[in-house]
This record gives sequence, C-alpha cells and structure tokens, in this order.
Amino acid sequence: MPHPKSSVEPASSADEASVIINAMAFDLPRYLRERAVLIEHHLAISVPESDGPTGRLIEAMRYSLMAGGKRLRPILALAACEAVGGPTEAALGYACALEMIHTYSLVHDDLPCMDDDDLRRGRPTNHKVFGEAIAVLAGDGLLTDAFGLLVGSTQSAGIPAQVIIDTLAEGQPLTQQELEHLHSKKTGALFVASVCGGARLGGAGSAQLQLLRDYAAALGLAFQITDDLLDVEQATEHLGKRSHKDLQRGKATYPSVIGIERSRALAHELAQHACQALAGFDSRAEALRMLAGFAVERNL
Amino acid sequence: MPHPKSSVEPASSADEASVIINAMAFDLPRYLRERAVLIEHHLAISVPESDGPTGRLIEAMRYSLMAGGKRLRPILALAACEAVGGPTEAALGYACALEMIHTYSLVHDDLPCMDDDDLRRGRPTNHKVFGEAIAVLAGDGLLTDAFGLLVGSTQSAGIPAQVIIDTLAEGQPLTQQELEHLHSKKTGALFVASVCGGARLGGAGSAQLQLLRDYAAALGLAFQITDDLLDVEQATEHLGKRSHKDLQRGKATYPSVIGIERSRALAHELAQHACQALAGFDSRAEALRMLAGFAVERNL
Repeated sequence: MPHPKSSVEPASSADEASVIINAMAFDLPRYLRERAVLIEHHLAISVPESDGPTGRLIEAMRYSLMAGGKRLRPILALAACEAVGGPTEAALGYACALEMIHTYSLVHDDLPCMDDDDLRRGRPTNHKVFGEAIAVLAGDGLLTDAFGLLVGSTQSAGIPAQVIIDTLAEGQPLTQQELEHLHSKKTGALFVASVCGGARLGGAGSAQLQLLRDYAAALGLAFQITDDLLDVEQATEHLGKRSHKDLQRGKATYPSVIGIERSRALAHELAQHACQALAGFDSRAEALRMLAGFAVERNL
Repeated sequence: MPHPKSSVEPASSADEASVIINAMAFDLPRYLRERAVLIEHHLAISVPESDGPTGRLIEAMRYSLMAGGKRLRPILALAACEAVGGPTEAALGYACALEMIHTYSLVHDDLPCMDDDDLRRGRPTNHKVFGEAIAVLAGDGLLTDAFGLLVGSTQSAGIPAQVIIDTLAEGQPLTQQELEHLHSKKTGALFVASVCGGARLGGAGSAQLQLLRDYAAALGLAFQITDDLLDVEQATEHLGKRSHKDLQRGKATYPSVIGIERSRALAHELAQHACQALAGFDSRAEALRMLAGFAVERNL
C-alpha cells in the first residue's frame, strides 16, 4: 500500500500501526483489484456501447463512467455485503448504481455553471469533450440508469426497493454546507449509503446496520479530511484533477482551519474509530477494516 | 372546452364530431379540474416547503413544479388506472413522479447550454430566477425525488418496482431525433409511460395494456402535432413560452413539412384512432376518450 509522500508532516506511526493491524493476513491491494474488475465489468455491461442514434450520448456517459477512479464507494458496498455474510453478487447492481450516481454528480459538478473544472481523473472533463448540452444529458442519463439498476438489484435480492431508497435518502446531506458538497466527492453521505445499502442486500440485522453506519460516517469524514490534505500537498498532474482549488476558492478545509498536523491525526483517529465499530464482526469484515486504513493512507 | 382560435384553418367539423362523441355524458373540464387539484395537492406534500438550509433549492424545485401547466401526463395516468377499474389513489404517486420527471426535463431543457429559453408557463425560466447552478441541481433533485415517489407508489400497490421501471423504459425515445425531443414536451414517450404505468397500477391485464399502449402512442403523436400547430399560430403571451421557436430554429415540424391543413387533419385522425383502441372499454374509460379530443382541440 503506497504511503503518502508528504514533505510537510509524517503520519504518527502509532496511529498507523493500529489501522494496519492484520495487514499481513489480508491482501488489500489484491482485494481492491479483484473487486474493481468485477465492478468495471458490470458497469460496462450496464451501459453498453451503441452504434445506434443515441451512440454519442452513450459515449459521453461511458467516457466518465469508465474513466477509472478508485471505485471506493461500490467496493465499500460489496465489502459491507460480504461483512454480514452475503454473497458479493447480491450487492453488485447496487454498487454499480452508486458509482453511476457518484459519476453523474461529478459530471454536473464540473459544468461551467457549477465548479467549472477542466480536468477529472486525469482527462478533460465531460463538457470539455462533448459540450455542455451533452454533459447535462449524460449526467441525467447516468442518474436515470442508476435508479433502474438499483431497482433491478433489489428485485433480484427479494428486498423491497423502498428499503434501499430509504437507505439512500438516509445518506443524503442535510445542511447547506453539506449540500454544497453534494456534487463533489467530498461528501461522506454516499459512504453511508454504500455501506448500509450493501449490508442490507447482504442480509444485515438492525444491530449490524447501526454499527456499520457508525463505521461509514467515521470513514466518510476521514476520507474527506484526507482529500483536503491531498489537495494541499499534491500537484495537479498527480491527482488527475485540479489541485489547490480549495485554497484558491478560500474554502474552509480541515487543514486551513485546524492545521495539517492535527488534520492528519484526526483522520487517523477517525479511521481507528471506524475500525472499532467493527470489533464484533468476524474475519469477513477484514476488507472493511483495511479500507479504513486505505482511506487515510492513500496518496490519490 | 375552448376551441382553437385559429385564423388559418378551421378544424373539420366531421372529425370533431367523432372525437367529442359522448361529450354530453361526461364533464371533461370538471374532471380535469378535480384531478388537477388532487395532483397539485400530492405534488405540494411530496416536495414540502422548507425553512431549513436546503430551502433555496427546494424553492427552485417548487417554483417549476408548482407553476401550473395542464398536468396532462399525470391525469392520463389516473384516467388509465380508472379505465381498468383501479382506484384513482393507486396511481397518484406514480402520476406525480411522472410530472416531476416532466418538470425536471423542462428545467434542464431551458438551460442556456440547451434551448436557452427565458419563459416557461408564463414565468421566467428556473435559471433566470435562481441561476444556472441551482437550476441544474433543482432538475437533478426533481428527478431523484421522482424515483423515490415512484418506488414508494409501487410499494403501496404491491407491484414490483421493476415492472413500473420497465414501463418507463419502454416509453423511452429510441432515435436521435426523438432524443432531441427528450427534454421538451414534444415527445410522446412519456404519454405511453403515463397511460401504461397508470393502467398497471390499476390492475390492467396484458390485452388491456396493449390497447392502452396503442391509445397512448396515437395520442402522443396527436399532441405533438397540435403543439407544432400552436407554435405556428399562437403568440408568446398566450402560450406562456416563446412561440415560433421551431420556425426560428429551422426545425422540421409537421406544419412545415406537410402543411397546416394536413397537419390538423392528421392530428384529428390520430385522436380518432386513439379512441378506437378504447372501443372495448366501458364507461370508466370515458375520461381517456375525452382527453383524446382535448389533446387536439386545446388552444394552449
């Protein structure tokens, strides 16, 4: 697992040791690779290429959807499903729906009237390639298809769609500040939806769900703080999107408010807290435990 | 029922007589009023006002959603549900979801990067009042909430959400040309979804569904041709949106391709055809029959 190449402040090694506990017993990079392959495959068949008259719109949808990225939200959904003993496949449609919702929000967020970004995942943003009109439609199409996939997924699992819709709504941001983050990856809301939805599809009980909600909320915050840190520390070329943009916009971020050192310590504390919520889970929750470490130790 | 005040070409009175048959037995204006009240009420409680931090976004969503309009799509859904003997309420959530999908498509369609319209339903368009960023988010929010409502509605009716999602997908446009119309009221696709979804929620059998699909497809086309005619004949002040815009854009419309007279005759033929599909239905389909006449005889 790569360690952040920070020139500013090394992570506390005590915090680190606690989150990477059991690292020897579980091959996280391999897990991430294998689950990502599964997700990529399912995304590709969910929005198939088309030579037909809608080809250009489909191309725009696939351009953003198949652009890589960490696939962290869908992987969390699969891992949560597995953690409660469900088969990986039970959460696969839901996981892909989450990634499509995440991608639609990025496409609309990058629009000139929103954040006006040119670069995303190392490539020109959707509207830079396809124009604004197609970018709006591509986002709408991804959101629409996501709901279709989500409903189909609950159908196969024999779970009422309402349960999963409620889970999604539960993960929605509630404040204006969070709302501003709705269209950026900075929100942790989708993390709660990823984890709790995946767990429901895996057959989680209500006590398990409450613990997993705690896990996801802490993880989402840890992820956001780490994102803020990366925005300060990394160059645009490395991130694949414009860096230092929080600073340029004068946005209040964790590093700007509480400093880099305390931000990093807080992120590690939250990752630990997330793992503590999983204390009663068995080895099938190992991926979730490892993902908490990954969220704060990544350099991308 | 108002008659089109056209200075160009009066409707054939023979065609007219056939579509307004039974007009004495059924009070369409009253039916439209009563169903619209029901829909307005349900829309208002589905997207409730909020003083909270998301208040501005909710306000933008309600601005377009509660702006009136004919509510033709949701009324078709209720009428189709009633035509197969279902209770009106069984299709109410679905009907409102359709109106929210229709409204989201108008909000995005009016954006500067799309049709760049300033006027809609007699009022400034959403982005003119709230700005482009909020207008994009308001459209996204309406689409998202529509799916929530749709799923909740199938849940109450004890019908798998997948069935209704499939019905919606079935109504999707398939060609590039239709796709261009996806974000305007010119598409008849949502008519098929309105009618067939409402009928499914009302407990329609497959033979009934096929007939209602024929009805809706003919009605959608008749509605579109009438829209083209109104665009040519009416002033902006009367329509509540910019008129003559098809002409200004050099769009191929029915009047421009086959002439005004033949367009009007075709619209009436299609309305008759739609009614013929309902021949085997009893008096509970009277609203649907009357709506076919209304679609081609309206002046708005």
